[in-house]
Amino acid sequence: MIYADNAATTRMSEAALHTMVSVIRENYGNPSSLYSIGQRAKETLEEARRSVAEVIGADPREILFTSGGSEADNQAILSAAAIGRKNGKMHIVSSAFEHHAVLHTLEKLEKEGFEITLLDVHENGIVRPEEVEAALRADTCLVTIMYANNEIGTIQPIREIGSICRKHGVLFHTDAVQAVGHIPVHVVDDQVDLLSASAHKFHGPKGVGFLFARKGIRLANLIEGGAQENGKRAGTENVPGIAAMAAALKEAAGRMQETAISLTEKRNKLIRGLSGIPHSALNGDEMRRLPGNVNFCFEGIEGESLLLLLDDKGIEASSGSACTSGSLDPSHVLLAIGRVHDVAHGSLRLSIGEDLTDEDVDEIIRSVTEVVAYLRSFSPIWRDLESGKKQHIL
Amino acid sequence: MIYADNAATTRMSEAALHTMVSVIRENYGNPSSLYSIGQRAKETLEEARRSVAEVIGADPREILFTSGGSEADNQAILSAAAIGRKNGKMHIVSSAFEHHAVLHTLEKLEKEGFEITLLDVHENGIVRPEEVEAALRADTCLVTIMYANNEIGTIQPIREIGSICRKHGVLFHTDAVQAVGHIPVHVVDDQVDLLSASAHKFHGPKGVGFLFARKGIRLANLIEGGAQENGKRAGTENVPGIAAMAAALKEAAGRMQETAISLTEKRNKLIRGLSGIPHSALNGDEMRRLPGNVNFCFEGIEGESLLLLLDDKGIEASSGSACTSGSLDPSHVLLAIGRVHDVAHGSLRLSIGEDLTDEDVDEIIRSVTEVVAYLRSFSPIWRDLESGKKQHIL
Repeated sequence: MIYADNAATTRMSEAALHTMVSVIRENYGNPSSLYSIGQRAKETLEEARRSVAEVIGADPREILFTSGGSEADNQAILSAAAIGRKNGKMHIVSSAFEHHAVLHTLEKLEKEGFEITLLDVHENGIVRPEEVEAALRADTCLVTIMYANNEIGTIQPIREIGSICRKHGVLFHTDAVQAVGHIPVHVVDDQVDLLSASAHKFHGPKGVGFLFARKGIRLANLIEGGAQENGKRAGTENVPGIAAMAAALKEAAGRMQETAISLTEKRNKLIRGLSGIPHSALNGDEMRRLPGNVNFCFEGIEGESLLLLLDDKGIEASSGSACTSGSLDPSHVLLAIGRVHDVAHGSLRLSIGEDLTDEDVDEIIRSVTEVVAYLRSFSPIWRDLESGKKQHIL
Repeated sequence: MIYADNAATTRMSEAALHTMVSVIRENYGNPSSLYSIGQRAKETLEEARRSVAEVIGADPREILFTSGGSEADNQAILSAAAIGRKNGKMHIVSSAFEHHAVLHTLEKLEKEGFEITLLDVHENGIVRPEEVEAALRADTCLVTIMYANNEIGTIQPIREIGSICRKHGVLFHTDAVQAVGHIPVHVVDDQVDLLSASAHKFHGPKGVGFLFARKGIRLANLIEGGAQENGKRAGTENVPGIAAMAAALKEAAGRMQETAISLTEKRNKLIRGLSGIPHSALNGDEMRRLPGNVNFCFEGIEGESLLLLLDDKGIEASSGSACTSGSLDPSHVLLAIGRVHDVAHGSLRLSIGEDLTDEDVDEIIRSVTEVVAYLRSFSPIWRDLESGKKQHIL
């Protein structure tokens, strides 16, 4: 089996799993408790906080542990909105291809009277810093732009946007769920105020994530209750999961460069190989994308059929975001980069991991080529395209 | 070491841990993905949902998985409040000794214009159903009363309250975090509309819980984003944690009666033994309490010193809720049952588990008796009490 859907979720690393099991067995106390095993759990928690903070250049006090990336996105945006509302600033700048954890939170705020500007991401899937600056208004309280897109993998000019926001005194949040653990992320250099991350995207456990919030930014609670996480996130801390996340992140950060080089090589080979399929197109900028991300559109086919036939051949991939699968609508990301409905439906995302071999790469190219040809052989849309009844777009 | 703080958190059972590790290793897919391992993860998730539902008498579609009890409490109460607001009903009935996940959420709602009635819990720590009924108004949208108190373990007349709420057409939520897996809980028989539970209180993992919401009750999202959990709770599902929770609950439910009998016996022995300490008093009703809960006040001592000295003797216990430890305020629960500040400060909660031996029981009684006497030997308050300068209360 070739697993090529690491953007949806990753297999937990042995180091992370080992950490989790050993904390569960030997260190199961409640970190809020005064006695020894409670205090040991507290130390484990704070050690994890230091470790996570170090990787992204933060102070440990700036790290809040959450149940995942979506919760972190929600809390970050609602917190910035609460600060904005207090100051009479109710305008937010974002982009059209953010994750739904961001877009749906913005929709909620829109209903509460906020004005939202969604920037174009252009054909290459990259937000332009000058357009961020142009969108800023006197009443802008927040800019939220993802670090790297979850479907097409394009890496955004976060540092430039951070610098613009800092210059204008506007809070800047980035959903870095696809970036942390994969490419260098540094909250000081990037001039980021709020950043969300999720453990299961970098070989950590599911159900754990974190929110970085720069010192001085008052977070609003999403979950009220006990005084955990400095009073900003109630609920007994998931110490084993948090420790495992820290272990996974440390591991990912330690081998980041070598992984990126190896993945980039395989990614480029995949892109070259799949580009050989007629009437296909890579989605998103060819260079400024995550080392492991490949995303193609193929004319005349349905993405879902493609996935199911690839699965039969032992290749597990995706048509886009797992969070929206089951929906019949085409990807909002592909629409945002200008793909028309028909073409957006025929998409394939391959998000590869370190375990992918060169033989796997060849196997993927061969299988996708075969399956696309097979599906086109009885596709009515393809027939219309080939007969000239419809015009080819790609 | 004697661990007697199972109300704060429990050691994960081997069955639950085994389930978690095997899902992590063999079934790490994203349940939203279409291919085989994604679909296997989806099956695991739905199997867990059926299993959890069965234990509490619910339909699987009525179970929403959350990151824990606090999140479930928040979502339940905010959902009921949203329904109430829509119908112009902005009055909520609760009790003075609820968990802070409930009380702080109610405070938030109070700021938004809701009126909150907190019922007295009386000296025995039990809400009176007739007082619930008397508190209901035409604009009451929700009654939220915990199933069993987390500090003093008193079990509330949930079925009677449920019946009253149903009769009056008012939604009824119960924070059943301390009850589920320990005493029989049945959402149909209990006539409960919303119920919160947390896995790590019944030997499941930390960071996982669930919310039962009766069919037809429209939940408000706490976390916006992807379409997981029927669109009501965004974020990739923590499949290993959820499967482990289901395994732990099934195990706990299967041996519930025999555990309860054994714990009740040990609990009663502890209560008898500690009652032998002069000027001490059991907190909460002696009979209508959780099988594993013992909670005492001792005059003339500080609870924190008591805990630290017991820890030195290898006994891990608590003065009350772990969620509020570190706070210098006396327990709101003990104040609610009428303990004065001085006395409430000298509290000890023992929440025992199945691994507690008869020798452990004797050891606890001996150690607590010794430590209380030792602390009193140099306590200025105790000197005043003994010299008659202050009056004994207990």
